[in-house]
Amino acid sequence: MVNTPSLTVGIVGATGAVGQELVRLLHERNFPMTSLRLFASARSAGKTVERNGKSYTIEEAKPGVFAGVDLAFFAAGGSVTRALAKDAVAAGCLVIDKSSALRMEPNVPLVIPEINPEKLRRHEGIIANPNCSTAVMLMGLWPLHQAFGLKRIIVSTYQSVSGTGAEAVRELEAQVQAHVKGLPLEKKVYPYQIAFNCIPHIDSFDATGYTGEETKMAQESRKIMGLPNLRVSATTVRVPVVRAHSISVSAEFERPVNLEKARAAIAAFPGAELVDDVANKKYPTPLDFAEKVKCGVGRLRIDTAWDNGLSFWVSGDNLWKGAALNAVQNAELMAREGLLGKAALAGRA
Amino acid sequence: MVNTPSLTVGIVGATGAVGQELVRLLHERNFPMTSLRLFASARSAGKTVERNGKSYTIEEAKPGVFAGVDLAFFAAGGSVTRALAKDAVAAGCLVIDKSSALRMEPNVPLVIPEINPEKLRRHEGIIANPNCSTAVMLMGLWPLHQAFGLKRIIVSTYQSVSGTGAEAVRELEAQVQAHVKGLPLEKKVYPYQIAFNCIPHIDSFDATGYTGEETKMAQESRKIMGLPNLRVSATTVRVPVVRAHSISVSAEFERPVNLEKARAAIAAFPGAELVDDVANKKYPTPLDFAEKVKCGVGRLRIDTAWDNGLSFWVSGDNLWKGAALNAVQNAELMAREGLLGKAALAGRA
Repeated sequence: MVNTPSLTVGIVGATGAVGQELVRLLHERNFPMTSLRLFASARSAGKTVERNGKSYTIEEAKPGVFAGVDLAFFAAGGSVTRALAKDAVAAGCLVIDKSSALRMEPNVPLVIPEINPEKLRRHEGIIANPNCSTAVMLMGLWPLHQAFGLKRIIVSTYQSVSGTGAEAVRELEAQVQAHVKGLPLEKKVYPYQIAFNCIPHIDSFDATGYTGEETKMAQESRKIMGLPNLRVSATTVRVPVVRAHSISVSAEFERPVNLEKARAAIAAFPGAELVDDVANKKYPTPLDFAEKVKCGVGRLRIDTAWDNGLSFWVSGDNLWKGAALNAVQNAELMAREGLLGKAALAGRA
Repeated sequence: MVNTPSLTVGIVGATGAVGQELVRLLHERNFPMTSLRLFASARSAGKTVERNGKSYTIEEAKPGVFAGVDLAFFAAGGSVTRALAKDAVAAGCLVIDKSSALRMEPNVPLVIPEINPEKLRRHEGIIANPNCSTAVMLMGLWPLHQAFGLKRIIVSTYQSVSGTGAEAVRELEAQVQAHVKGLPLEKKVYPYQIAFNCIPHIDSFDATGYTGEETKMAQESRKIMGLPNLRVSATTVRVPVVRAHSISVSAEFERPVNLEKARAAIAAFPGAELVDDVANKKYPTPLDFAEKVKCGVGRLRIDTAWDNGLSFWVSGDNLWKGAALNAVQNAELMAREGLLGKAALAGRA
């Protein structure tokens, strides 16, 4: 790390599924911080938690707490971001937000560091991170776009319950336990049983019949890749998988495609691991890509429905590349480029 | 039923997953048969089984056993069909085949009775039934084609383990039991763990990187709907669901689409049940469409990736409409139209 100032880092929503991964990744990846403060709702405030061999007292996330915090990861949902992000920015804190609240704001960069890192240089104190399915999908799509020029994508997702949160992981586990014990299966988080089922419904429906998750995949893909005219159709589906999302992607390109070049582009892309040897039954599965930094891309083939088309399958950790890891990677890149700390923030464009 | 002759019916592969559903459906739907004979491999021959209150002795499926059988359902896989179907036809028996062995033969009709029933009138002793995913998908696609004229489809499947067979149902159950008990999860049927996982691999891979299942969905859709130029791209995926397949479909049409007409077409189609009220969280799930005669179609919406496009989600029982039920429905229609029995077969074109 060059020019790294003394950094106090905060995590808002530190007790949630993504917040816990943030604490873990900041430690495991040796993020250059001098101190770490954990914030959560009033309900958790005052509790002491052990994380990576250190003891932390949870502080209540509320206006005024960000004085002295240089960088705050927000992982507590859109309403907390809307309530507190501006307060944090006013206190001179850089906010790296995981929620969907501000992603599409024109003055908020939405960044995947392997794709549009230059956007980290021009911000107003808030950096947004993409939706989990979008981030995982783009680990396969972006290198193919660079090779052939994207025109249109049709995608279907296979999303794990940890994307909903820790309570949904418990619901799937409880349903499976009840099934084995011959007890009735209870549901609370999802409108239908998720064990042994698929639910084509993630986020709420709008008047067009698309869900918020589907619309996010379209809008965020366009913003991150800088392709405002990209046509996207997504169907997002919850499946009984604990961790890691998968996406089946069919993409039409501007230029003629070929498999050799496509595989080389995937293999050379830092965010992807090419797992594509079907003769030996090698392709990614969500189980294999839980708690992996890279997303697995495989089943690459010439798409039979288009003239210049490719299909592929990608699996990646929704809590890591889909959430906490991407946020940490954004912060790491900003640290490497001297974009963190009070001096850098005060002097920004 | 009119002109129904005395009918002796046989089931080849009677002890398998589809065979058992055939026995059940023939009884429950009061198929006009005077006697039923059950055939299986030498290993099962001689065993006595109780089915629907009657006792049957399993006979070995081998050349020569079809004398006196008017109609035989073959549900024992492609190799058994290839070995025995011609022998059955030579004995004057009509074969209704569930295997994939002969589906694409030009002289073998491939029939879904709600779509191309006229093909049942012209055959050479063998009627083929479609692949499970194809049959379920077409319950949504055919009425939309009739309304707007199909041009292209991109589909991803969510297929249950019963499509692989009874041993795969046991494997998923055993893995879930082991998970709950904290024991190691063992796999034999699938190359990867299927509990809490998705496996983008059904049937074997060909040189293009598509699987046999994906190619079947394309070829069979074209043949059944009579659309030799339909462009199809399929990605077929196994999910940890016990029974009923689901398919996410994006379709491009020749003519402008509208949702009201699309919903009316689905609702009026005998093979489909429209479950499409997202404001009240109503859409099909595989759990809701296991052991249902109709396939559930929902999540209908104007597809954002095409100019004349519709997306939808369909769930249907792979062992019923995807297998045994479609075969029985073909036989029922032939019985109603006087196309069964020695006299009808002897006098056929």
